Amino acid sequence: MAENIATLEILQERMSANPFNHWMGMQITALTENEITVKITWREEMISNPEAKYTHGGILGATIDTVADFMIAAKVGIPVPTVDMRVDFHSAARPGDLTCVGKIVRLGRTNSVAEAVIYDVDERLIASGRGTYFTAIAHNQA
Amino acid sequence: MAENIATLEILQERMSANPFNHWMGMQITALTENEITVKITWREEMISNPEAKYTHGGILGATIDTVADFMIAAKVGIPVPTVDMRVDFHSAARPGDLTCVGKIVRLGRTNSVAEAVIYDVDERLIASGRGTYFTAIAHNQA
Amino acid sequence: MAENIATLEILQERMSANPFNHWMGMQITALTENEITVKITWREEMISNPEAKYTHGGILGATIDTVADFMIAAKVGIPVPTVDMRVDFHSAARPGDLTCVGKIVRLGRTNSVAEAVIYDVDERLIASGRGTYFTAIAHNQA
Amino acid sequence: MAENIATLEILQERMSANPFNHWMGMQITALTENEITVKITWREEMISNPEAKYTHGGILGATIDTVADFMIAAKVGIPVPTVDMRVDFHSAARPGDLTCVGKIVRLGRTNSVAEAVIYDVDERLIASGRGTYFTAIAHNQA
Repeated sequence: MAENIATLEILQERMSANPFNHWMGMQITALTENEITVKITWREEMISNPEAKYTHGGILGATIDTVADFMIAAKVGIPVPTVDMRVDFHSAARPGDLTCVGKIVRLGRTNSVAEAVIYDVDERLIASGRGTYFTAIAHNQA
Repeated sequence: MAENIATLEILQERMSANPFNHWMGMQITALTENEITVKITWREEMISNPEAKYTHGGILGATIDTVADFMIAAKVGIPVPTVDMRVDFHSAARPGDLTCVGKIVRLGRTNSVAEAVIYDVDERLIASGRGTYFTAIAHNQA
Repeated sequence: MAENIATLEILQERMSANPFNHWMGMQITALTENEITVKITWREEMISNPEAKYTHGGILGATIDTVADFMIAAKVGIPVPTVDMRVDFHSAARPGDLTCVGKIVRLGRTNSVAEAVIYDVDERLIASGRGTYFTAIAHNQA
Repeated sequence: MAENIATLEILQERMSANPFNHWMGMQITALTENEITVKITWREEMISNPEAKYTHGGILGATIDTVADFMIAAKVGIPVPTVDMRVDFHSAARPGDLTCVGKIVRLGRTNSVAEAVIYDVDERLIASGRGTYFTAIAHNQA
């Protein structure tokens, strides 16, 4: 697999410059050649069901999409457009920060695939998924 | 197909009681036996790329998931848990309100499938997708 | 939407030249600007569960992928590589020929999306799904 | 994670009793608590493009679906119905046997998720994907 060409600091800068990622309080806590770890800071507006206070599935999907994308960004230099994605919801997420780990499935010329998994504060598996990303746009800028 | 058992007003009440749906400014503008139409009110925090100001894909995914779910809710009475979902991103969404139309693909006892399509203010196709929903939970409450 | 540039006869020729499509007995029974209809000829080797004799989900997935692809082929001239796909299984398919209808969701320059639905001889909904197709390859050949 | 309750031999018997799996020449070559490895025996009818002789994507999808299902079968005792699935196609598969490795993502009461990856004889990544499986049916039989 290609080596990372963007550092954690450069990726965090781009992540925080993105208003919705910033709203989700996304912080990259670790970056290796194989995976990226991102913390999502819980906020009340993320709640879905008002009684159970579960985190909205849309927040989980946005997190998986973004974190998978940023692992690709580590390899190609910039976040790239998502072509499509799938999310599987495994358990309801109770109020609290979430941790998401992203990995590359396959880095291609035009389309690439990455996956991500979300855990809650108790390290329970909350959701997982994968997306196809349009990496041609990054290679064209390089 | 089964007839609707929840009215637009009942569904809107549940939609607005959901903090993240409320944050997205979701308003049901039409409900028939075959489809539900929902308006999403754009806000700056929904932006992804800060220069292009495109709406974040996570907002599009959350919208498709929620709108497909509420068409099922019209049939079974309450919104139900999403098992998994797929979203296809067709065009970048420029700043502005979005319209999402949801339809049922198949209503089942345990799992059901619904789909939704998002258009921007110029009626351009922005994204589309489908999800599997756990309807057993609704049937058990009936 | 772009007009068809391949006729039913040209598409059938390509479909039948494909050994696995040929094995599945695929016959295009109708082609309009908006949809393609394909008949799949049941054979014993397609069975999954030996007692219930349901058709294998892999056959249903292969059918959805191929039929969606051939609706794109009608628009771009040739079948194109599938990037990824999703299939939802709605009902078990009893022994017998199947009918699959494909439609375009969005025709793009690099990636396009098409969907398809499978019915059994009783017009019962069996499966449905959608895929992303790499259409750049066709545009480059044009 | 739950321990396996079906052995390789029992699973192979069920796999071979399935006519389409038998047609694909599926042989379980290894089974641990964490993964199942299955060999697919190439045959000419599996070809898609007649010149390039690539294996049809439908065969790859059927393989991923079946192998993921059989890892679940190792845990719950019997293969279970697929609710939905996603397949990503990474590289064209040249003529030759394929190897597919399946793993569980999450074992649930009603719905479970498993994933699988396909390699060719040169250990090149060909395709990968995941599916949702209806495990309630197995638990009800237990």
